[in-house]
Amino acid sequence: MVKVGILGVGTVGESVAKILLENADIIEARAGKRVVPVIGAVRNLDKKRDVDILLTDNPLEVIENEDVDIVVELMGGVEEPYTLVKKALEAKKAVVTANKALLAYHRYELQAIAKDIPLFYEASVAGGIPIIGALRNGLSANHILSIKGIMNGTCNYMLTKMIQERANYDEVLKEAQDLGYAEADPTFDVGGFDTAHKLLILSSIAYGIDAKPEDIIIEGIEDITQTDVEFAKEFGYEIKLLGIAKRVEQGVEMRVHSTMIKADSMIAKVDGVMNAVSVVGDCVGETMFYGAGAGGDATASAVIADIIDIVRGNSSPMLGYKKGLESGLALVAPETITSQYYIKLKVVDESGVLAKVSSILGDYDISVESMLQKPSQLANRVRLLFTTHLCQEKKMKEAIEALKALDVVEERVTMIRIEK
Amino acid sequence: MVKVGILGVGTVGESVAKILLENADIIEARAGKRVVPVIGAVRNLDKKRDVDILLTDNPLEVIENEDVDIVVELMGGVEEPYTLVKKALEAKKAVVTANKALLAYHRYELQAIAKDIPLFYEASVAGGIPIIGALRNGLSANHILSIKGIMNGTCNYMLTKMIQERANYDEVLKEAQDLGYAEADPTFDVGGFDTAHKLLILSSIAYGIDAKPEDIIIEGIEDITQTDVEFAKEFGYEIKLLGIAKRVEQGVEMRVHSTMIKADSMIAKVDGVMNAVSVVGDCVGETMFYGAGAGGDATASAVIADIIDIVRGNSSPMLGYKKGLESGLALVAPETITSQYYIKLKVVDESGVLAKVSSILGDYDISVESMLQKPSQLANRVRLLFTTHLCQEKKMKEAIEALKALDVVEERVTMIRIEK
Repeated sequence: MVKVGILGVGTVGESVAKILLENADIIEARAGKRVVPVIGAVRNLDKKRDVDILLTDNPLEVIENEDVDIVVELMGGVEEPYTLVKKALEAKKAVVTANKALLAYHRYELQAIAKDIPLFYEASVAGGIPIIGALRNGLSANHILSIKGIMNGTCNYMLTKMIQERANYDEVLKEAQDLGYAEADPTFDVGGFDTAHKLLILSSIAYGIDAKPEDIIIEGIEDITQTDVEFAKEFGYEIKLLGIAKRVEQGVEMRVHSTMIKADSMIAKVDGVMNAVSVVGDCVGETMFYGAGAGGDATASAVIADIIDIVRGNSSPMLGYKKGLESGLALVAPETITSQYYIKLKVVDESGVLAKVSSILGDYDISVESMLQKPSQLANRVRLLFTTHLCQEKKMKEAIEALKALDVVEERVTMIRIEK
Repeated sequence: MVKVGILGVGTVGESVAKILLENADIIEARAGKRVVPVIGAVRNLDKKRDVDILLTDNPLEVIENEDVDIVVELMGGVEEPYTLVKKALEAKKAVVTANKALLAYHRYELQAIAKDIPLFYEASVAGGIPIIGALRNGLSANHILSIKGIMNGTCNYMLTKMIQERANYDEVLKEAQDLGYAEADPTFDVGGFDTAHKLLILSSIAYGIDAKPEDIIIEGIEDITQTDVEFAKEFGYEIKLLGIAKRVEQGVEMRVHSTMIKADSMIAKVDGVMNAVSVVGDCVGETMFYGAGAGGDATASAVIADIIDIVRGNSSPMLGYKKGLESGLALVAPETITSQYYIKLKVVDESGVLAKVSSILGDYDISVESMLQKPSQLANRVRLLFTTHLCQEKKMKEAIEALKALDVVEERVTMIRIEK
């Protein structure tokens, strides 16, 4: 019999305990041993919980409990779980965590501490989708050329509503909050930070890159308007918040931002709260992994899959490498990435304006792929929409500053990166 | 250093040898040891091959070679590879196979022989998509509620062309043959047998069911016409060849057939030669795994992933169960499955015909969900299209015989199952 202790018995923790009990027979058949949840640590012992295990408000009682073979960490936060996971590993207990923030900051330290003790984290990225297993095992023969993931259900729900129901950002945010998909303070989701944490984890497995959130471009969906969504459609694109990591000549680009992607690509078809990660490998070509990225039971599915793997005696290297990779792949500096761009300007409707704007784009070596002029709601104003060929981020940002400085250009200039 | 011998150095075998050499550094970093292809067995030594390994025309020289640690079986066929894989396992050599036919017939015997020797087969189902790993590891906490897979690229290519280009079956078959997607004798693909082999393998992992191809419904796409594709669209469906396994009250239904699926479901959006498998679990909900189902490099990606897992020392149970599963799940007899159906009849255009047809459907407890009447190309004939609510396969087949016996019903009656 294998005994499991749970740090943090919230929605996911309750699901883990419940499924371990309800699906006990099939889990035993697959794992080879009975797996039993025995104890959970919670902050507030008075709160009623729907689980039939011993509860304590002291996490150390879980870790130090001699009965506990596997510690499941579902607390959230960074430093407290780091200390506790470290203690569990030092006590030679296998650990399963769903904590993406912990791993975004401390995955390499934890790998060094864990050594041969299993430290698994399938649930930390894209909930129930076994994307960690896919990258660490299923696609291990490949040089990974790119990862593009819809890894935040809140953002995807909101963007889908904006596309399908022509709703405004503020309306859909309110709706997402009412449905419990978005927090009262939605910044962590809509600002792209949640996606960034997940991208950092995947990039370690794909590329062996040790980066922190502050090293990469992180933008959210807050500036996307209904107009952008409509215009994207006219150019044949949909807008999705993507976590992107890709191999380029100089190393690996990593970035999180609203992205225009071809409407007929598989990942553009992923709607609502669902998540999907597209991975292109040099042998396998494009693969995509789709499923529920959040929710108690879906996340518990991934947590328990890790537990079963541990009980089976599997021990894939935590971050996918048995030996250090001498590939020399380095993170590309954010300003030197290259992309195609969509730019939206509101300008005064008079002759010569298009020439002024075009001339600035030319000054910064930005070559236009297509252009649309659209009426504005304001009299004497028009909207100019451009999509560009590949150019450098730095030049694009400088060009936008120069455009803003033109007296014929009004309001803010919108820039959305395009991925093909 | 780990040495690999390859039985069958065709398209996939060449890719395996080539990728092991070209991606040697990253494979070593991930596996922990250098992996080197050393010898391959071929039928015809005179044929020029694009690999830099020793070749022999005696497969036993590969298996008995003391240098060889892992035997990769890529020969095709059933009985010859069975004998050879058995010999390799008896010689305590780990085996990786991409041979779905071998596994469709002998997976349980091979599991019994292999015991603790790894026998991995990720490449046998859906090429480069790591669906075996997903079912055996990633989704192991779940009772699997259903598997629905597009697992034959030839059929999906043909159906996609019929949908998108309004092409006829014979035209697209010829085109698929010219492009090398379909064999001169395409029966194994278009008749559903290839898909059935793959479904049997997945069902063993999902349900522990030991079935053979002859135990399940296997139908292909040969009877699908351009008209059916068009009519499906009017009802909101697309037609795909699916391998379906699903848990029902009485056990597990398994079947391969052309299927009408909702046009807005993820799997309906999988076009061309691509494969995808949708798996619904009781905890995780719906997941989908998408990628290239065939091709040398994509298949080699899966073969080498298995090799890396073996070198890492992982040993998930071959068919996913460490202990026998006492779930009592049994295969449901083909005639007792239930489904919704689409039926297409050509009838004489006179009063009273609809009443006769409806009355027969009623006699067999078949309740109509929707009905369309369409003009026929022939004078005095009309087409009647029905979709039904759930009914039993046996009753549907009897009803179709009774309909055919009506003197107002012409030609063959088309029946296509609907999945929601």
